[in-house]
Amino acid sequence: MARSRLTPEREAELYGAVLDLLREVGYDALTMDAVAARTHSSKATLYRQWGSKAELVVRAMRSNKPLHTTQVDTGSLRGDFLAMVSDTDDCQVEKDTALMRGLFHAVHDNPELFQALRELLIEPEIDGLNVLLQRAVDRGEIPADSPALKYVVHMLVGAFAARQLIEDVPPDQAFLGSYIDAVVFPALGV
Amino acid sequence: MARSRLTPEREAELYGAVLDLLREVGYDALTMDAVAARTHSSKATLYRQWGSKAELVVRAMRSNKPLHTTQVDTGSLRGDFLAMVSDTDDCQVEKDTALMRGLFHAVHDNPELFQALRELLIEPEIDGLNVLLQRAVDRGEIPADSPALKYVVHMLVGAFAARQLIEDVPPDQAFLGSYIDAVVFPALGV
Repeated sequence: MARSRLTPEREAELYGAVLDLLREVGYDALTMDAVAARTHSSKATLYRQWGSKAELVVRAMRSNKPLHTTQVDTGSLRGDFLAMVSDTDDCQVEKDTALMRGLFHAVHDNPELFQALRELLIEPEIDGLNVLLQRAVDRGEIPADSPALKYVVHMLVGAFAARQLIEDVPPDQAFLGSYIDAVVFPALGV
Repeated sequence: MARSRLTPEREAELYGAVLDLLREVGYDALTMDAVAARTHSSKATLYRQWGSKAELVVRAMRSNKPLHTTQVDTGSLRGDFLAMVSDTDDCQVEKDTALMRGLFHAVHDNPELFQALRELLIEPEIDGLNVLLQRAVDRGEIPADSPALKYVVHMLVGAFAARQLIEDVPPDQAFLGSYIDAVVFPALGV
């Protein structure tokens, strides 16, 4: 795919329009026609650039995430975790949570969307997290044989999902910081 | 509500029919008419006994869970956790996961269902878990001031949700046992 044909500004504009539409009508009712009309582009261009609605939506979601795990490298594990947490300023989390809930809702009926989410969003973030953890192992912060290393994603997913499920509020920084100190670090043997 | 008017056998029969219907058509398409027809009862009886479709469905779900946290008391924390895990034999988990996914899907559009799930299923299980943890504190197995005590639910939810999200398989006993040893016990300081 020749994604390079678009300028970054034009791409950002397109992604913004997709996210707006997603908030307005949800994944199922979002059409490539609507995206084309909203952004004054042709459907052919959209399909050439992104291949499918699922890929376009997930790349738009990914562009909306201000910081990726691959970009985090503060020099310490605590610093890296805090950077990931401070990325999620409360307002942003609230907004993303609504979007993500809508998407995860749609995933149920759209295997293609699930596939795109996994390949383009979830797996790259997990890969970045594992690189970040490996650096902490290399620095001697985490014991290399810590059996919790492979469960960091599970611990973090639990923090987000259970907070929403039990308390019906998105996790804020204070909550995540406390969870990291109480659960993630002790489990890792930090 | 005079739930006692039904014999336990009749109640089990009704709940079984509700779960069958739920698997067949999903929450949104499930009607009290269909439940009444399937169980040869009147809609008036169903509403008198359960008040609402949401409550009927959640109580049926609850009846389908063979073991509740309130019933677990083996004398040790490890024993209690293993009992909770062994309750989830693989086939049962697989079946329940499909049901639960359907329900959590429906929750998105049905606040009444979310309310019933929280009040009748989630909160009683969390209360039971907290009693179980308090016994472990009283026995001296968990330090009373362990900051991870309030996050055990989050850790367990993470194990289930992330396993499904990342590996797209329901958690089995071997996975849960390993997770408890690698994450939950070290976090609690056991």
